[in-house]
Amino acid sequence: MNTLLIKNISLKNRIVDVLIEGNVFKQIEPNIKAGKVDKIIDGTNRAIIQPFYNMHTHSSMTLLRGYGDDMRLFQWLSEYIWPQEAKLTPEDIYNGTRLAIVEMIRSGTVFFLDMYWHHSEIIRAVEEMKIRASIGVSFIEERGKREIEQNIKFINGFVSPLERISINVAPHAIYTVGKDLYQELYMISKVKGLKLSTHLAETMQEVKSCKKANNNLTPTEFLESIGVLDDNTIAAHCVHLTEHDAEILSSKGVTLVHNPCANMKLASGSFNVPLINKYDLKVCLGTDGTSSNNNLSMLEEMKFAALLAKVSYKDSSLLSANQVFAWATKNGADAMGINSGRIKEGRLADCLIVNLNNERLIPNNNLISNWVYSADSRCIETVICDGNILMENHIIPNEEEILEKVKRKIM
Amino acid sequence: MNTLLIKNISLKNRIVDVLIEGNVFKQIEPNIKAGKVDKIIDGTNRAIIQPFYNMHTHSSMTLLRGYGDDMRLFQWLSEYIWPQEAKLTPEDIYNGTRLAIVEMIRSGTVFFLDMYWHHSEIIRAVEEMKIRASIGVSFIEERGKREIEQNIKFINGFVSPLERISINVAPHAIYTVGKDLYQELYMISKVKGLKLSTHLAETMQEVKSCKKANNNLTPTEFLESIGVLDDNTIAAHCVHLTEHDAEILSSKGVTLVHNPCANMKLASGSFNVPLINKYDLKVCLGTDGTSSNNNLSMLEEMKFAALLAKVSYKDSSLLSANQVFAWATKNGADAMGINSGRIKEGRLADCLIVNLNNERLIPNNNLISNWVYSADSRCIETVICDGNILMENHIIPNEEEILEKVKRKIM
Repeated sequence: MNTLLIKNISLKNRIVDVLIEGNVFKQIEPNIKAGKVDKIIDGTNRAIIQPFYNMHTHSSMTLLRGYGDDMRLFQWLSEYIWPQEAKLTPEDIYNGTRLAIVEMIRSGTVFFLDMYWHHSEIIRAVEEMKIRASIGVSFIEERGKREIEQNIKFINGFVSPLERISINVAPHAIYTVGKDLYQELYMISKVKGLKLSTHLAETMQEVKSCKKANNNLTPTEFLESIGVLDDNTIAAHCVHLTEHDAEILSSKGVTLVHNPCANMKLASGSFNVPLINKYDLKVCLGTDGTSSNNNLSMLEEMKFAALLAKVSYKDSSLLSANQVFAWATKNGADAMGINSGRIKEGRLADCLIVNLNNERLIPNNNLISNWVYSADSRCIETVICDGNILMENHIIPNEEEILEKVKRKIM
Repeated sequence: MNTLLIKNISLKNRIVDVLIEGNVFKQIEPNIKAGKVDKIIDGTNRAIIQPFYNMHTHSSMTLLRGYGDDMRLFQWLSEYIWPQEAKLTPEDIYNGTRLAIVEMIRSGTVFFLDMYWHHSEIIRAVEEMKIRASIGVSFIEERGKREIEQNIKFINGFVSPLERISINVAPHAIYTVGKDLYQELYMISKVKGLKLSTHLAETMQEVKSCKKANNNLTPTEFLESIGVLDDNTIAAHCVHLTEHDAEILSSKGVTLVHNPCANMKLASGSFNVPLINKYDLKVCLGTDGTSSNNNLSMLEEMKFAALLAKVSYKDSSLLSANQVFAWATKNGADAMGINSGRIKEGRLADCLIVNLNNERLIPNNNLISNWVYSADSRCIETVICDGNILMENHIIPNEEEILEKVKRKIM
């Protein structure tokens, strides 16, 4: 088993050594006397910190970055995004996902929950680039029965090539997937032991249409009424929730994914943090796709989440740096059942090495505050996922070739 | 005169050469046949772009970064910020300003309008580090007559050591400076030909107190009534404006500075972009001080401004990337009367060289969109201000020594 020793690194204001054996944090304490190790990293003037778990994205939409901004949602989708998406080939998806993974690694993310098309291409990119992911097999009824059948067949036959790669069952949303298919997919997810991920209550329009079509039920109430919500559900956005919705999400143990940048950029609304706190809901963070963000930085996402909450609810004490940091890190790992998200002995070895000599982290009055409110990707030197080094001292293997493949313009 | 030639660089989707002579863009066109030049920079796979003009900050508050976050405004000021500020020595201010300037250079800023204490120390740091600045000589009545007299004497005697450095007259706000002193400072600013910078309508509390104390006049109406608003006025924040306030600010030609991060973090409110657009007000962008942000990145500030406007006014087409980019760049230069903010022959040579091979700028469907919504400071390779190279290929001279001086914790 490979061993990696990080010497003299700051962990919560203590200086320790960190010994990684295989894919696990074997030992964390000052002055470890290890025998022969395969590699030593000097942690002087650096901190070790848990990385990000991006719980909602459409990774290969990196290809559409900057294509059609600043317009109304429907015009954006119908005139820009959908026509371009229709042209994307499997090879495009592979290349776009690789670009997304480069961007995620550089900004400290080691896991993403994806929802898109051509899942096999996404899995290929994830496998090669050594990141963790749960690839959503997406369902939209309009795309036809044949695709639905193929996707179900794929799910039923799927055997993961590696422990760090899983799939999830991803009915897109209540306005694109009907009751029968939702229920069928829910059953498949139970039988296969997979997460069910979906968009929920993203826009006011969705809520209004749902209530009109379903006896005044909100999207959350509707999904509860058809029996598809439980602690395996991962619901993205959840911007427009009632008190009763929050009760349901709490009692069912649903995980919510907050996507502040996309909700702001598309003018969808502001995540109701006071309500979320009142019901102590399980919350993670996600960047959503690049075309509604327009990057995949969880660092930025944390700051947007905290500042949006404060201004929206006129309370500067709302959503502290520590709370949003937990949403972006361990809450994601916990929701996925990944034994990580903490720098602790026995946990899977996911971590970042951060340069404390970066001007944004000086003075170091409070590292988590600096991390959430001040840092950017330049602070991140080294990224370790499942015991593998994905980036070392700012260098990602093959990056040049990966970027070269996606440089052409879409337009 | 020093000459610098940047070869084969992308400027608005054209590939050009850029010849800088002294502190001016001398020639911009493809394939310049220059004679002997002092230095050549290869611009291949890079873009040249106008840098940022940070129109409202308190630079040396970098020293208080991460000190006392996530709390109510008054508790934050009275228990954390003011007691610490009282302890800062002139040497601290010098060192804190140098840290701020490192951070600004790295994030592409070449000018800042400052408002703080110990202005001589700030000027010293600015002079050494070759950035542009207008240093506010600040006034708060509570700090006593002696300081007010000294500051007025300083203003009256001030002769700038360099064209890129100016001072401005900075009455803090209507709740810290009374009518008589405001009027006196206004007259001094007119006589000396200086800008008058002030905080205005930052919080609802300020508006309420002002109306109560001044026959129901809003802060803007009050300043108009005492005759101190004109096209030399630079008003920071301006969060809570009425229609009549906007009319006044328009007719007087006042420049507004939007500080979205600080307004969000302190829960002050959302800048009224529809009203600003309706009256076509002059708007710039600023980061405010580090302790309410907590960095000095104008890149981040642009994204926060655009996304906050969209979500606040439920309109995803509001405040486009191009509009907010103009606020952050040429509008600042114009407000200060600096003949810059554009990459054009005859203008002062302020520019950034940006790496188009950075993953956040790929694909390059729209550089301004990528810049506003996706980029971070890692994209910026080289910063040129007034013809001087402040950072070349990510390297700032003396950076290590500057950072070392400010590493100790405040607490």
